[in-house]
Amino acid sequence: MYSERIRLASLHDKVMSAAEAASLIKDGMTVGMSGFACAGDAKAVPFALVERTGHEPLSISLITGASIGNGLDKLMAEAGLLARRMPFQADPALRKAITEDGHIVPTASVGNSANLALFADQVIVEISLRYGANLEGLHDIYIPPERPERSPIPLVRPDQRIGATAIPIDPAKIAAIVISEYSDSPSNVLPPDGETQAIADHLIGFFANEVEAGRLPRNLGPLQVGVGSIANAVMAGLVDAPFENLSMYSEVLQDSTFELFDAGKLDFASGSSIVLSAARGAQVFGDFERYKERLVLRPQEISNHPEVARRLGIIGINTALEFDLYGNVNSTHVGGTRMMNGIGGSGDFARNAQLAIFVTKSIAKDGAISSVVPMVSHVDHTEHDVDILVTEQGLADLRGLAPRERARAIIDNCVHPEYRAALEDYFARACERGGQTPHVLEEALSWHINQERRGHMLTTA
Amino acid sequence: MYSERIRLASLHDKVMSAAEAASLIKDGMTVGMSGFACAGDAKAVPFALVERTGHEPLSISLITGASIGNGLDKLMAEAGLLARRMPFQADPALRKAITEDGHIVPTASVGNSANLALFADQVIVEISLRYGANLEGLHDIYIPPERPERSPIPLVRPDQRIGATAIPIDPAKIAAIVISEYSDSPSNVLPPDGETQAIADHLIGFFANEVEAGRLPRNLGPLQVGVGSIANAVMAGLVDAPFENLSMYSEVLQDSTFELFDAGKLDFASGSSIVLSAARGAQVFGDFERYKERLVLRPQEISNHPEVARRLGIIGINTALEFDLYGNVNSTHVGGTRMMNGIGGSGDFARNAQLAIFVTKSIAKDGAISSVVPMVSHVDHTEHDVDILVTEQGLADLRGLAPRERARAIIDNCVHPEYRAALEDYFARACERGGQTPHVLEEALSWHINQERRGHMLTTA
Repeated sequence: MYSERIRLASLHDKVMSAAEAASLIKDGMTVGMSGFACAGDAKAVPFALVERTGHEPLSISLITGASIGNGLDKLMAEAGLLARRMPFQADPALRKAITEDGHIVPTASVGNSANLALFADQVIVEISLRYGANLEGLHDIYIPPERPERSPIPLVRPDQRIGATAIPIDPAKIAAIVISEYSDSPSNVLPPDGETQAIADHLIGFFANEVEAGRLPRNLGPLQVGVGSIANAVMAGLVDAPFENLSMYSEVLQDSTFELFDAGKLDFASGSSIVLSAARGAQVFGDFERYKERLVLRPQEISNHPEVARRLGIIGINTALEFDLYGNVNSTHVGGTRMMNGIGGSGDFARNAQLAIFVTKSIAKDGAISSVVPMVSHVDHTEHDVDILVTEQGLADLRGLAPRERARAIIDNCVHPEYRAALEDYFARACERGGQTPHVLEEALSWHINQERRGHMLTTA
Repeated sequence: MYSERIRLASLHDKVMSAAEAASLIKDGMTVGMSGFACAGDAKAVPFALVERTGHEPLSISLITGASIGNGLDKLMAEAGLLARRMPFQADPALRKAITEDGHIVPTASVGNSANLALFADQVIVEISLRYGANLEGLHDIYIPPERPERSPIPLVRPDQRIGATAIPIDPAKIAAIVISEYSDSPSNVLPPDGETQAIADHLIGFFANEVEAGRLPRNLGPLQVGVGSIANAVMAGLVDAPFENLSMYSEVLQDSTFELFDAGKLDFASGSSIVLSAARGAQVFGDFERYKERLVLRPQEISNHPEVARRLGIIGINTALEFDLYGNVNSTHVGGTRMMNGIGGSGDFARNAQLAIFVTKSIAKDGAISSVVPMVSHVDHTEHDVDILVTEQGLADLRGLAPRERARAIIDNCVHPEYRAALEDYFARACERGGQTPHVLEEALSWHINQERRGHMLTTA
C-alpha cells in the first residue's frame, strides 16, 4: 500500500505505529519537527507523544520551522511536554515520502526540515496518505555550504531551481516510518472587505506611479507577502490591478497566490510553505498539476535569505499591529507585552527588501484602538527599515523623509479621522520641545495605558 | 606639478580654482560629495560654496556617504546652504586622482563616491596634494549590475578583490578639477581605559569559550567594528588576546586596526574608509607601503552588503547608547528625541551578521544615566537582532533566550550595581502583570523622564 511512497525497499521494515516511533523519543531529548505555519507538520508522532505524558514523565525541547497546526502546540504545552520551544535539535519527525536513495520528499512545506534532518542523529518520517505522490518535484532543497567555504547562492530569478527535489540524508538515520492519514490544518483567513480593498487600492495607485516614474518595472518585481488575513486580502486586490506577469518570492503562499494564478496575473510563486483555507486547499491539491510547474517550495533559510531578498529587489508587504508617528512598526505585541503573533520572516524582508511596505487597518475593536500611535509599545521594525505605510485611509511614502516629515505624512494619510486631532496635538506639543525625533515622553505610551485601563485609547471618548 | 595625478592629458585644461569649480553648482541643484566619516571628503569646493552664500542666494540638496570633516557640515548648515541633506544627486565633487582612462582614484574613503559619480551629470574632482599617489591600488570598486540582471557578488573572502582600482566614469563628465592641499580631519577617539578594557576582557572570554565549543574558528572569522571610541578601544583590547590571523570586514577602519596590524594579530582589513587620529594618521600615511597589501577600501554598498555580511558570517561589534531589559538597543537618540549620532551601518550588520554584539559602559555622566533601562526611548536594533550585550560589568549572551530569560541575563550581568535594585524591582512588578514581554507601561520611560527633569535617572539619588 505504501511501497510507492517508500521507494528504498530496505526501509520497509522501519514502518511502525506512531506509538512505537514516539517511543524513540526519550525524556529530555531535543526534537525537531517539520511544519511551517500549519503546513506539512508532523502529526501522528506528536499526538502519540502527548498520549505518553498521561503515564510517564516526558519533557522535550522542540524546534519547528514556524507554528504547527491541529492544535498540537496547545495540546503539547498543556500536557507539560515542552520544556523549551526553539533551540538545538536531535531527532526530527518529518512528514513526507521517501525516494529510492532514502531521501525525503516533503509535502506542503519545507521550512526548517532540511536543516533539522541534516543535523539530526535519528529521523522519524511520517507519511500521510492524504497527499498524492505528485508533490514530488515541487521542492528545491539547497543548503549553503559551511563557512568559511560558503559560496554565493546561485539564485537570480524566483523561478530558478538550484537544489534537489528531496532532502538528502543518509537512510541509516531513518529510525522509524509512520503511515498516517492526517491532513494539514486549514487556514482561517478572513475574506477581503471594504477596508482591505481600500488598502489594496492605495497600494495599486502607488505601484502605478512608481512604474510610471520608471522606478519599478511593469511587473513590479518579485513580491513577498506576509501571512494573515490582511496581507492575503491586499494581495488578492491585485487580481483587478493593471499589472501582468507578476512573480512572488515569499515565505507562506496563501489563497491569494492561487487567485492570482487563476486570474492569469501571476507567472510564478516561490515560497517555503503553502497554507490554504479548506475550500482552496481541496481545489489546489485536487488539481495540483495545474499549478505545479509554476510553484517551488524552498527551505526557509533560502526563502528568507538576505542575499536573495536584496539581489532580487523584492517588494515586501507585511502586516503591522500598530505603527507610530516616525514609522516604527510593532508586528507582535499588544500593549507592548502580550504576544499576538511572532515576527515571522518580516524582519529579514523589511531590512533587505527594495521596498518595505507595512499594511494595517487604521483602527481596531470598533475604534477603541488606533493602529497609528505616538510611540509604538514594542518595536519589531525600526524607522530605518520601513519605507511605505498603508491603512484604508491612505498611503504614506516615507522614503527620504526626515522624522518630522514622516510624522506629517503619517498624520495626513494614515491615521483614522477619530484619532487625527489627538495625534496632531501630540505631535505639535512634541515639536515645541524640539529634538530630531520629537516626543512628549511622559505621554508617549499614554494611549496604550488608556486602552488597558479604560478600554479606549482616548480617555475623552 | 600635478600631471602625475591627472594622467589623462586631455583633462589638464579642466584644472581651475575652487571658486571657478564651485560656480558650476547652481542654486537648487542636488550635489553629491565624497566623504565617509571624515575620510576622503571634498573640501576646497564646499568651502568655496560657503563663501558664495555671502553674496548670492544659494541652496542645494547634499548627499554624502556619511559625516564629513573640517567642520564643513556645520559651516554649510550655518550658511543656509543646505536645503536638504540626503536624497538624489546630480554633481559630485570627488577628492582624488585621475588615471589615463579618466577614471578616478579615491583617497582615504570610497563610501558612496562610486555610485554618486556614476549617476552624476557632471563631476568636479578635487585632488589633494597632501596624499601620495601610492594610494592607487588600495581601492576595489565593484558596482552590482542593475536588477533584474543582478548576479551574485563574487566576494567570498575579506581579502578578495572583485572590481577596479578606480571609479570608472566617462571623462567627458569631468567638468572641473581643483587642486588643493587640504588634509582629512583627524578623529578624536578617546584612548582605552579600565572600563573599555573590562568590556574587551569579557568579550575575549566569550570568544575563547565559543572557540573551545567549536562554534567559532580559531581566528574568529571576519570582524566588523563600529566607529567611535568605545568600539575602537574594545578592538584594541584584542592586541593581547590569544587569537591570531584575525581579519576585518568592516565599514570604518580606525586606529585599532593598525594597532592589531602592528601587533601581528591582524592579517587583513576590508573597509569603506580609514579614519585615524592625527598621530596615527601621520604614521600610517607616512609609511603606507607597510600596510597597503593588507588593506582594501570598497564602496559602502559592498562593505555593508547583507549578502556579504551573511555569507562571510561576520561578527559585528557596535556601540549602544542604551539597551533595555529585553535586548532592544538605542544607538542614536538621547532621551528618545535628541540625535547623538547616526545609526551608520550597524543595522545592516546587526540583522545579517552571524553574531551581533553591542557594547557600552553601564553608566554615563558620573552615574546620572544608566545605559541599561527598563525600555529604551528609541529603538535602532530590535530584540530580534541582538545576540550579545557587554558592559564593563559583564556579558549577557541572549541567544536562544525567551524575553524573561533575557531580562534575567541582563540584570545579572550588565547593569551597574547602583541601578541593579531599581531594575530588578521594575522587572519583578512587570512580571506580576504578566505577558510575553512584561512591562509596567506607565513607568517604562520614567528613568528617561527623571533624567530630563531632575538630572538623574533615579529620583531617589
